[in-house]
Amino acid sequence: MGLIVQKYGGTSVADLERIRNVAKRVAKTFDKGNNVVVVLSAMAGVTDSLINMANQITDSPERRELDVLLATGEQTTAALLSITLKSMNYSAESLLGYQAEVLTNRNFGSARILDIGAGRIKELIEKNNIVVVAGFQGCDPDGNITTLGRGGSDTSAVAIATAIKADVCEIYTDVDGIYTADPNICKKARKLDKISYDETLEMSSLGAKVLQIRSVEFAKKYNVPVHVRSSFSEEEGTMVVNEDSEMEHLVVSGITCNKNEARITLKKVPDQPGIAAKIFSPLAESGILVDMIIQNTRAGGMTDLTFTVAKTDYNRALEISKKVAEEIKAEEVLSAENIAKISVTGVGMKSHSGVAAKMFSTLASENINIRLISTSEIRISCVVEEKYAELAVRVLHSAFGLDKE
Amino acid sequence: MGLIVQKYGGTSVADLERIRNVAKRVAKTFDKGNNVVVVLSAMAGVTDSLINMANQITDSPERRELDVLLATGEQTTAALLSITLKSMNYSAESLLGYQAEVLTNRNFGSARILDIGAGRIKELIEKNNIVVVAGFQGCDPDGNITTLGRGGSDTSAVAIATAIKADVCEIYTDVDGIYTADPNICKKARKLDKISYDETLEMSSLGAKVLQIRSVEFAKKYNVPVHVRSSFSEEEGTMVVNEDSEMEHLVVSGITCNKNEARITLKKVPDQPGIAAKIFSPLAESGILVDMIIQNTRAGGMTDLTFTVAKTDYNRALEISKKVAEEIKAEEVLSAENIAKISVTGVGMKSHSGVAAKMFSTLASENINIRLISTSEIRISCVVEEKYAELAVRVLHSAFGLDKE
Repeated sequence: MGLIVQKYGGTSVADLERIRNVAKRVAKTFDKGNNVVVVLSAMAGVTDSLINMANQITDSPERRELDVLLATGEQTTAALLSITLKSMNYSAESLLGYQAEVLTNRNFGSARILDIGAGRIKELIEKNNIVVVAGFQGCDPDGNITTLGRGGSDTSAVAIATAIKADVCEIYTDVDGIYTADPNICKKARKLDKISYDETLEMSSLGAKVLQIRSVEFAKKYNVPVHVRSSFSEEEGTMVVNEDSEMEHLVVSGITCNKNEARITLKKVPDQPGIAAKIFSPLAESGILVDMIIQNTRAGGMTDLTFTVAKTDYNRALEISKKVAEEIKAEEVLSAENIAKISVTGVGMKSHSGVAAKMFSTLASENINIRLISTSEIRISCVVEEKYAELAVRVLHSAFGLDKE
Repeated sequence: MGLIVQKYGGTSVADLERIRNVAKRVAKTFDKGNNVVVVLSAMAGVTDSLINMANQITDSPERRELDVLLATGEQTTAALLSITLKSMNYSAESLLGYQAEVLTNRNFGSARILDIGAGRIKELIEKNNIVVVAGFQGCDPDGNITTLGRGGSDTSAVAIATAIKADVCEIYTDVDGIYTADPNICKKARKLDKISYDETLEMSSLGAKVLQIRSVEFAKKYNVPVHVRSSFSEEEGTMVVNEDSEMEHLVVSGITCNKNEARITLKKVPDQPGIAAKIFSPLAESGILVDMIIQNTRAGGMTDLTFTVAKTDYNRALEISKKVAEEIKAEEVLSAENIAKISVTGVGMKSHSGVAAKMFSTLASENINIRLISTSEIRISCVVEEKYAELAVRVLHSAFGLDKE
């Protein structure tokens, strides 16, 4: 009937029993007359324990060799699933990154896919095999093993779906779809039947652990329908597709919360041309990604500069900022780790005004002070004190009519 | 100075601490001006636990996929050693079987090496890298992962040493060389400084867990000097080399003991042409390897046929033998599992007579009954009751003048 790529995450293949369940689900899809390509993550926890092992040797394990080590995780699950399928009398064959011709650049640890020469996959499909591909891994033009970074199996799956022109790429995970908010925070969160690539991108980059961002970029670029669903139930999940007219009745599709950032403010910076570069160049040189940047002009040719960085970069960023502050004669450096970024996302914002105003007034009605604001075409984010994070999500969820009946 | 291949077995890389010791030893060899290619086994116990995992899925895991699974063991140690060497500021790079171009046939699980296109290894050596190769694994002409069978890393190492024309192939293990007998059985066993390929072959095939037989065949064929030594000491081990004049003063170089066989006797078989084929063909068809075969002619056109098989094949072999016995009207089938094969090996036998006589009389003097005898040009083996095994080894060791002073 169709050509389906199914990607199973670490919790779905966490042990032999769960791998057997995956095999049954794959077999069922195959028995319905579909061709199936399965893409697998490592067993839950394995990648972390391999990284931990390497870190016991040295603080900064060499990236090429770390990728060789990490690639064993997906190799193991691919072999185990193939053994299981074979024992159930299905024709199955595992392919590692280089065998599936997942060609990447040389950026070990977070390589980008350049091309998928899906010759071998197609050949196996034509012979009616179930193809089991080790996710997360590829190889560079010299045949070195590379890995695609955290969540890279999502990207493997979408890229393979693109290369073989699959009808759908199903992402099986331990949640049953994409929600209007994190159900752990907001009990009234609803599962979305459909969401656009762009909204998913905004939500992924905002800390909703739904899909690896790059997989969504890939899906959007090549227009691959992605179906996010649970490997533990038969229920339909959430379809991630191109924006369509049906979606537009929802102004806002989700509220997300990100507690992984910290805030740094340089107070009373002389407001001169080139001052921002003086602050942000050394951060960039140290490989620190700055997320939000706000500049408030003060009286007297002075300005306050506030920005956020990932909490993991916070100490280094603060140190650099203090050095810079001295050089440019800023009055002082303030900082806070206890912040949360609350975001409202929805393609409907493009055609609806008043979303920002409603967000601000809703937060104000609960006396939640907004420290920073940033916006995109389909998203508004506010930084608030961390202690208000859950409250903010819940009141916004209600205010934008997302609560389930 | 030289080009050295060093192979480290499972106990030598059993944990991160031991891998660090291996790294130090490799670095030391490199610092003396040598080029070094390291070949690694999986951590002790890992291959068994992977096999065990696959066996939890099915009794007979598909061989191609099992090889994909098993190959992760050596991939892990190769990556970890490279990370360690890099952290010590040495240039090192790991290569998996397919990257090292270890081309094998398609016989998954016990593949034979067809060719080693050592281009990449040589290239890395020329750039003064330490090359770390995952042992035990190769790839077939289609790029499928294959493994070389138990102890296959020895063969990887010797084959690579051949391909790059190394000066020596050092096999690091948890014993410090090849002994005249198993030191656990015979306290007076001496370490041999030198032993010939042929003697090592006979001793390997007789259950002395020294080297994988195929690695010795390879070494002999291409005349690669193999140095068996301990990774836990600096002492010289045993050199396995071509037979030379120096060796000939030793008539016997070792006494070995193999308890892994069982004996089956078909009594009073009609002594007709073709009767042996009737007995051994069905065994061969079932994939059972028969080791020793003895035929005793009795009076009255009858004969007794005795043979040994591996204990793991014993039950199947006995079943088949009983069927055949009925067909050919043999009187009865006798069998015993409690046997041991004691062997005396030495290239000196070629030019010295009386070795067999001395062996038989030595055993007789201890009232040890010999059940079966078989010989090769450089070996005499006797099957005795298992309970006499250790005694037999010790008295023969003394009788042939092998006891250390």
